[in-house]
Amino acid sequence: MEPQKESQAEKLARPRVAALDEILGVPFRVLDDGLVRVVDYMGDDAAIVQAARVSYGAGTKAVSDDRGLIRYLLRHRHTTPFEMCELKLHVRVPMDAWRQWIRHRMASVNETSTRYSLAIDAAQRTEPGAWRLQSGDNKQGSEGFLAEAAGLAFSGSESELQEHARRVYDERLAAGLAREQARKDLPLCTYTEAYWKIDLHNLLHFLALRMDPHAQREIRDYATVIGRQIVARWLPLTWEAFEDYRLGAVVYSRLEQAMLAALGARDSAQACALAREAGWLKPAAGGGLARHRERQECEEKLRELNLTIPW
Amino acid sequence: MEPQKESQAEKLARPRVAALDEILGVPFRVLDDGLVRVVDYMGDDAAIVQAARVSYGAGTKAVSDDRGLIRYLLRHRHTTPFEMCELKLHVRVPMDAWRQWIRHRMASVNETSTRYSLAIDAAQRTEPGAWRLQSGDNKQGSEGFLAEAAGLAFSGSESELQEHARRVYDERLAAGLAREQARKDLPLCTYTEAYWKIDLHNLLHFLALRMDPHAQREIRDYATVIGRQIVARWLPLTWEAFEDYRLGAVVYSRLEQAMLAALGARDSAQACALAREAGWLKPAAGGGLARHRERQECEEKLRELNLTIPW
Amino acid sequence: MEPQKESQAEKLARPRVAALDEILGVPFRVLDDGLVRVVDYMGDDAAIVQAARVSYGAGTKAVSDDRGLIRYLLRHRHTTPFEMCELKLHVRVPMDAWRQWIRHRMASVNETSTRYSLAIDAAQRTEPGAWRLQSGDNKQGSEGFLAEAAGLAFSGSESELQEHARRVYDERLAAGLAREQARKDLPLCTYTEAYWKIDLHNLLHFLALRMDPHAQREIRDYATVIGRQIVARWLPLTWEAFEDYRLGAVVYSRLEQAMLAALGARDSAQACALAREAGWLKPAAGGGLARHRERQECEEKLRELNLTIPW
Amino acid sequence: MEPQKESQAEKLARPRVAALDEILGVPFRVLDDGLVRVVDYMGDDAAIVQAARVSYGAGTKAVSDDRGLIRYLLRHRHTTPFEMCELKLHVRVPMDAWRQWIRHRMASVNETSTRYSLAIDAAQRTEPGAWRLQSGDNKQGSEGFLAEAAGLAFSGSESELQEHARRVYDERLAAGLAREQARKDLPLCTYTEAYWKIDLHNLLHFLALRMDPHAQREIRDYATVIGRQIVARWLPLTWEAFEDYRLGAVVYSRLEQAMLAALGARDSAQACALAREAGWLKPAAGGGLARHRERQECEEKLRELNLTIPW
Repeated sequence: MEPQKESQAEKLARPRVAALDEILGVPFRVLDDGLVRVVDYMGDDAAIVQAARVSYGAGTKAVSDDRGLIRYLLRHRHTTPFEMCELKLHVRVPMDAWRQWIRHRMASVNETSTRYSLAIDAAQRTEPGAWRLQSGDNKQGSEGFLAEAAGLAFSGSESELQEHARRVYDERLAAGLAREQARKDLPLCTYTEAYWKIDLHNLLHFLALRMDPHAQREIRDYATVIGRQIVARWLPLTWEAFEDYRLGAVVYSRLEQAMLAALGARDSAQACALAREAGWLKPAAGGGLARHRERQECEEKLRELNLTIPW
Repeated sequence: MEPQKESQAEKLARPRVAALDEILGVPFRVLDDGLVRVVDYMGDDAAIVQAARVSYGAGTKAVSDDRGLIRYLLRHRHTTPFEMCELKLHVRVPMDAWRQWIRHRMASVNETSTRYSLAIDAAQRTEPGAWRLQSGDNKQGSEGFLAEAAGLAFSGSESELQEHARRVYDERLAAGLAREQARKDLPLCTYTEAYWKIDLHNLLHFLALRMDPHAQREIRDYATVIGRQIVARWLPLTWEAFEDYRLGAVVYSRLEQAMLAALGARDSAQACALAREAGWLKPAAGGGLARHRERQECEEKLRELNLTIPW
Repeated sequence: MEPQKESQAEKLARPRVAALDEILGVPFRVLDDGLVRVVDYMGDDAAIVQAARVSYGAGTKAVSDDRGLIRYLLRHRHTTPFEMCELKLHVRVPMDAWRQWIRHRMASVNETSTRYSLAIDAAQRTEPGAWRLQSGDNKQGSEGFLAEAAGLAFSGSESELQEHARRVYDERLAAGLAREQARKDLPLCTYTEAYWKIDLHNLLHFLALRMDPHAQREIRDYATVIGRQIVARWLPLTWEAFEDYRLGAVVYSRLEQAMLAALGARDSAQACALAREAGWLKPAAGGGLARHRERQECEEKLRELNLTIPW
Repeated sequence: MEPQKESQAEKLARPRVAALDEILGVPFRVLDDGLVRVVDYMGDDAAIVQAARVSYGAGTKAVSDDRGLIRYLLRHRHTTPFEMCELKLHVRVPMDAWRQWIRHRMASVNETSTRYSLAIDAAQRTEPGAWRLQSGDNKQGSEGFLAEAAGLAFSGSESELQEHARRVYDERLAAGLAREQARKDLPLCTYTEAYWKIDLHNLLHFLALRMDPHAQREIRDYATVIGRQIVARWLPLTWEAFEDYRLGAVVYSRLEQAMLAALGARDSAQACALAREAGWLKPAAGGGLARHRERQECEEKLRELNLTIPW
């Protein structure tokens, strides 16, 4: 059976993005020995628009141009047109960052198997000035750095431990032990490599979470490269919209919204009443207000809006 | 092999929710002949807390109680603890609403097969006063109702067409035609039945989209019953948080956020400058400002905050 | 930040498949008014091999060539390397076939919305000789055709019903009723259009189910075109392996396997003993063996292997 | 709104499985310090039947009982009814086994975060007699054990390395370094804990892959406990069918099937001709047949069927 070529005119060329073709296969370095490079991609900004016009047909004619439509789609959290683009990367990542990465389930992965092959002979090293201190405030974060002089000792003990671990690995292999078992005591930050393929909708979700200041530094470095170096080149209109409506957006809760409305009406008393009703204004034992996480989050938002905290 | 019962003390009882057990299997009627009923469920508010404490361990001790932790999780868009609850429903839905429903892929479905069985002998009927007019503003919506007198004719032609379709279906079956082919001209709104099972995270996403005023009336009716009658009984703390942080929340874009900050600082000129720079303030041919969808959305938000539109 | 171009030599070109580029955008007709055409694709046979070599590294060197490796991967049900290819189609399908199609959740879809746009003015028509009879044996299947003379009447009543439905739809729209409601009584077989994007692993799963003789004729026609006209051109090595190890493969249960081993050892008595033990050989009331579906399936398999049924 | 209680008679009780309730929360020990325990579950064998009867309606009446229907569904690879059951486990697993486990994407996971909390102070230890040798045949497997005397040294160097790694971890924490960074050099086999929730269809897929003799010993131990200790108690009919139609089943390729048919017809020449055509019978340089993986796999199957290899 031959396709009916009467409509030859419809014959398509595959979408190409010159700015991305430019860097296809070229590695971006991340961390001390990691990398990200584009292996292949499907679609471009126009492919998103095309898919949306299939769905919404005449409804999209009101939106005059591609940029406007992409911005509309992202602003209103339409998702399926963004699934129409696909990116395939080759990455080299420490396994402890990869453990976080792989939690994003909506992606396809081929990772180097250390059952089949030797483990990569590289683990992530930390510069003396790059040891981060535990955040006091944020149970899961870091904040500031250890003095470089003190860091020197930790970089030394890191090297020593990594060398020890590799020596044990090599001894096991030399004795004929199975690769799948020999690897068991390698450091978590041993590098691994993978092909990682994901659609744009899920990629943007990954980037929103992993470019966030609360994400761990290591994976944030990868996400930032993927976002700013790769997606921005690949899909400039989508990237601009993503920065405006996702990275730069702020969500206000039902209560915060009611407070803003009270403040908009210059009714501070009403804003305080709302806060009191919500249990935000309980006195602390030692005077002042008791610690209340949601109230403190709200106060920070009000300050960013140049509004006076009414309580 | 027997499990090691030394830690018998750890033996668990399954979580139960009395308020949901109360209505297990009892149908909620929707539309003229549809229904939703709970067949089974897994987990309760405490199961969400339990899963979160596994993940965040000591980090969650700072949050004093279950309610606070659930609210924190939902406010900060944590998702995995909400996947730990599961709901299984039996639904009866017109196929045209079901076509929208089934687009939510992260669910498990067993739908009545009209290849195996006779199609249900019921199609959704419309009351004379329930014919909706096309929205002028919203390409995909409806707005207001046709006068009941005029609706009478449409309810009549609806009956007639549905009876015609059923007659043709029955004639085909009587002649021994295959069920899978006989059904082909049944009306889209013919009822179907299904078991639908979904985890809570995905269910909340479904509800956020389908309880929205922009969702089609029919599926909105189902979503509203599932949300307000079922989830609210099942998981009262999660439901409260969902209303506060999702249903009642408002998102401001990077630009809107900058405008609110300018207005907070009483700097209308700066707000106007931002709008102008973004291309929002182009003059219309006939005077006034040209139509600009994003500006209009922003104006509506400002009005809700009792703020004066600065341009 | 610029990518480090020292390894410029690694720069990649995107994989292209000339045989597929040849038909990009060109519609294959299906049914009376349906179509399938390729909009875009990612990857080729070599991309599967490349991903597998990342995973299995040295382990794959034993397999001398691409064909051998692809056959090995498919034979042993490796799945992730096949996820590395992606296909995007534009399809036009009757909604009742689409209802089956969309049950495959691991795909991305943008379907024409009949809330935004007018419903397509075409429903699938049946030729007088194409009315299928209900299978007696298979509750969900069809078998043979109604005589063309008798079919003539059914094709006539089909036209009449479809015209009636369209007239009612048009009257509703003319009266200003909402598109989302006006459509409710259109025939199930009204055509719809969609962009459908899926990775190769999931596509092969779709094809295995929908090219199967038990699949409904309509969707089987689509699946066959996608398989034989599109995938076979795109990925000739994978397609060949798929035919050998999936379409043409047969599964034997633990018991069937034991029976074949008994028959291999020319021990019919043992084969009968196994069957008896499994409850396959109960006498029917009227003499002979009672109906037993699994035994009958096994008998059919034995006949295909030119083996004498031992009981 | 109250549910319409006229059909009170329909009110359901949740399905319970006494044999599983018996062990709810009770840990099964795995490896030296791992565990698996059931936290909650949804559904039972009858729930699978119930969902299938919704789908296939009258079509399932032909199958007389639950056991027959479950066996039919599993034999014919129906999947959706098995998605109607759900299992939630608490597991404690070495991270290197967990890395394999987590590759099964269709599950919900809450894992202990070592950003929030201290890493568990336990890594998997290997007994002197439990060091496995690399398989010569199977690039990814192990085969046999190192002599216990030699293993003693490896168990010693394992302890030493694990203590070294923990000491470095503790020193980092003592110096106030961030937990997220301090953990980076812990051994891959450090234990982690998680809640893992999965539906039965995906669980069976996991078990088929991970109970397989080719799976790595460590994850196989977990899978075996989940299958034989938990699923077998929970869903005895499904488990029996799974053993018969999945664990014990054998797949024959199109070519193998043709060969079996030739051998069934006592036509060895035809079987040889098929093999020759497929390129299986090329002579080796040193005499005999050249190595051909697929032919060797087939030979093994023929031997299991007590058939003489025809070439």
